[in-house]
Amino acid sequence: MATDDVLKIGGRTFTSRFILGSGKYSHELISAAVQQAGAQIITLALRRANTGVDNILDHIPEGVTLLPNTSGARNAHEAVRIARLARELGCGDFIKIEVIRDSKYLLPDNGETLKATEILAKEGFVVMPYMYPDLNVARDLREAGAASIMPLGAPIGSNKGLCTREFIGILIDEIDLPVIVDAGIGKPSQACEAMEMGAAAVMANTAIATAGDIPKMAAAFRKAVEAGRAAYLAGMGRVLANGGAASSPLTGFLQEA
Amino acid sequence: MATDDVLKIGGRTFTSRFILGSGKYSHELISAAVQQAGAQIITLALRRANTGVDNILDHIPEGVTLLPNTSGARNAHEAVRIARLARELGCGDFIKIEVIRDSKYLLPDNGETLKATEILAKEGFVVMPYMYPDLNVARDLREAGAASIMPLGAPIGSNKGLCTREFIGILIDEIDLPVIVDAGIGKPSQACEAMEMGAAAVMANTAIATAGDIPKMAAAFRKAVEAGRAAYLAGMGRVLANGGAASSPLTGFLQEA
Amino acid sequence: MATDDVLKIGGRTFTSRFILGSGKYSHELISAAVQQAGAQIITLALRRANTGVDNILDHIPEGVTLLPNTSGARNAHEAVRIARLARELGCGDFIKIEVIRDSKYLLPDNGETLKATEILAKEGFVVMPYMYPDLNVARDLREAGAASIMPLGAPIGSNKGLCTREFIGILIDEIDLPVIVDAGIGKPSQACEAMEMGAAAVMANTAIATAGDIPKMAAAFRKAVEAGRAAYLAGMGRVLANGGAASSPLTGFLQEA
Amino acid sequence: MATDDVLKIGGRTFTSRFILGSGKYSHELISAAVQQAGAQIITLALRRANTGVDNILDHIPEGVTLLPNTSGARNAHEAVRIARLARELGCGDFIKIEVIRDSKYLLPDNGETLKATEILAKEGFVVMPYMYPDLNVARDLREAGAASIMPLGAPIGSNKGLCTREFIGILIDEIDLPVIVDAGIGKPSQACEAMEMGAAAVMANTAIATAGDIPKMAAAFRKAVEAGRAAYLAGMGRVLANGGAASSPLTGFLQEA
Repeated sequence: MATDDVLKIGGRTFTSRFILGSGKYSHELISAAVQQAGAQIITLALRRANTGVDNILDHIPEGVTLLPNTSGARNAHEAVRIARLARELGCGDFIKIEVIRDSKYLLPDNGETLKATEILAKEGFVVMPYMYPDLNVARDLREAGAASIMPLGAPIGSNKGLCTREFIGILIDEIDLPVIVDAGIGKPSQACEAMEMGAAAVMANTAIATAGDIPKMAAAFRKAVEAGRAAYLAGMGRVLANGGAASSPLTGFLQEA
Repeated sequence: MATDDVLKIGGRTFTSRFILGSGKYSHELISAAVQQAGAQIITLALRRANTGVDNILDHIPEGVTLLPNTSGARNAHEAVRIARLARELGCGDFIKIEVIRDSKYLLPDNGETLKATEILAKEGFVVMPYMYPDLNVARDLREAGAASIMPLGAPIGSNKGLCTREFIGILIDEIDLPVIVDAGIGKPSQACEAMEMGAAAVMANTAIATAGDIPKMAAAFRKAVEAGRAAYLAGMGRVLANGGAASSPLTGFLQEA
Repeated sequence: MATDDVLKIGGRTFTSRFILGSGKYSHELISAAVQQAGAQIITLALRRANTGVDNILDHIPEGVTLLPNTSGARNAHEAVRIARLARELGCGDFIKIEVIRDSKYLLPDNGETLKATEILAKEGFVVMPYMYPDLNVARDLREAGAASIMPLGAPIGSNKGLCTREFIGILIDEIDLPVIVDAGIGKPSQACEAMEMGAAAVMANTAIATAGDIPKMAAAFRKAVEAGRAAYLAGMGRVLANGGAASSPLTGFLQEA
Repeated sequence: MATDDVLKIGGRTFTSRFILGSGKYSHELISAAVQQAGAQIITLALRRANTGVDNILDHIPEGVTLLPNTSGARNAHEAVRIARLARELGCGDFIKIEVIRDSKYLLPDNGETLKATEILAKEGFVVMPYMYPDLNVARDLREAGAASIMPLGAPIGSNKGLCTREFIGILIDEIDLPVIVDAGIGKPSQACEAMEMGAAAVMANTAIATAGDIPKMAAAFRKAVEAGRAAYLAGMGRVLANGGAASSPLTGFLQEA
């Protein structure tokens, strides 16, 4: 990947386009996973940043940007409170807004997410809202000062992949912010496809945490994301509507030989 | 990728699982594409190996295994004749059988392919038949001495992807030979998916040749194939039938904080 | 179809589960299409109800429930204004809320749609909001007094089908209101699939209007919707994860014969 | 459906395009299913036609064409033997060739099927071969005298649907015989889609036999097949590559009102 293809968010520059979620790993696996995934951003729930003796923060390598999330918030008010607490605890200005009031499908509440984004962007946070991929809401989030949008591919933890493909594509076309696909991505090929479509980055957590070999799956995601990005930059070939097209000289060979 | 994960075909050992087709490149681009793709096997139509002044063979790096194909053959007899000619010309023992009598969809003739495989395997060739992914024929090809099978994903040159997904999966389950997906793969994500399913390797030609930036797309395919292989070896996580599954501690956070 | 399987909305009972949009037909075709589709509800933009000499209302058969929509509204205020005007013009109490501020993809504005729903439900309208299939918003619409929800399958007029399949399924599971798939359905098979999933009804307009033979396509949609409903009521058979299952006695036949 | 849209096979004319497989029903259910499905052709394994006291033939309504299949045959020889026996037993000239040597996936053996077709067509049978959807083999079957081809959608009994979609489409384009999709169709919407693509008919067995309510599911398949046929004849509307298209007058409404 050319080093001049960088992702800029909140004044920082990233060469990695894979974001690792930390929610389901044992502490011992996190640094291994971060290293294999080449991740420069790692999300974590605030509670995990703050658990006394064996602090998860100790397991995150130097130079990785922490992206605390507001997991556990059921409305804008709670999300704002968690964000402020994260900053006080030294987690920095980046915040992933996650407001969920649906306990079965864990789908984000776009309305409350928008409210929290407005408040926190004004307070100088680098706000990265997790969202249901609704174009109108994405426009409002941009107006409200979001630094990126993080639409879901499928319900959190489902490993179902790009169920929102059509609408992620619309967001990429229409929204002038980095579009980071977050939630539901279950296989490296799905992360690769999102990147081919023009996503700025992909986040995964459960896909890696539920794999048989966590560090190896982290490495697989890294390469798949890089592959998809390179393909996007290279420009995809056309797809035929019908028929085939010879890739080798098919006719006349034997006559001429 | 662990160096002990190798692909063995015809007594040779390959660490790359991406096979490059050469049919559509200008000569100047081939060495660049081979290098970027990390390919250790490259297919080419015999006519391209034999065109006087600017010989394509001069553009293929050292150490790459040549896989001449029988492109142009319309039946087993012609395929056998081309294979023998390739060996005489110094192209080695590897031969990709390609018998096509359908000029619109360019679909392989499984029956003639089987006949050619029987003959050429007995003559000591390392026979890699391009085939329509029919389980019964795959079994017959194995009995006939094929060194691998190369089922199509979609019509040649179509870039349509894994249209035969269900049946490629059956071949991988049932056939004790390397299954190499050949034809139709149009995007790195599709190559990655084939590898996640357990394919031994993937071949692409048109997807790279029709890309905007050929070397960059070659590099993308390399990484995607490596990603898919790593994911297969790592073991995929489960996919939820319904609902979501929290990846972070969602409940009780605020009460406890 | 058993006559006791009825769809109830706003105190009325319908035996048809196909809703016809009138936006793209010439007047002469509407009554033919309604008859062939067996539709008991037909939507129309208010402007079409109100154009002097050749009034579309004259072309709608007796006994069909008119569902005026607020097409043209860019916010809740405009939608409310159109709804009230429709009632004044004698179009009845049914109203389909359609608030669109995105002129390229024509995606509904869920926030404004919710506001309009709250106001109009209080005024005694039978409110049927066209919506982007967001579970949290669907819950809010129900709370606000919606009589049904009308999530889209794909952008209006695209004929792309059930791109929101995963999320329509979630709405059907979770929302205790008739879920009517509206927009994007391009083929009878897609309408059938939506019904198999448990949708209460399907609406189509462009799929019929752009067909070669409008009355015949209307008849096709009618049967497809009835087929899907019957299948849903019958209960689908299981899908095998792997392998096949003999449907006839395969073994031992010849020995015994 | 216009009565002049008929399916002709072996000199007979059918107005129904749904073929019912009888392999998995109790005898009592067969006549109900046939009636609900409106089927004019019903397949059955020869053994079922010949079991003494409670003969399945007694449960098949008048006027239905019997299509005995060669289920149980593992090669052409056995299939030919079963076909001749069926004719001797009074089952008529129609014969569905089914040659299977793969006991896990139950995929047809195209090579043996072709041999049996050649022999039986010469003996005056109306030969309807069940096949793996390989274009070259389909051409050979036509040459050999097949009266139709019956490509599979997915493994028998799997209810997986149109996994061979791409290749069924090629057969419909290229083969000048009725293409009847047989095996794997699990839902009415899938049968409808096959018909929309231009299939001449669809067969189902397991999808109905494993449904909760067999007669109701049979009725659902009947309507879905009729819907798909009507849509095919009507001519499908275009699908947008991007964006939406207004189906109602969206702009300027309020200003003019």
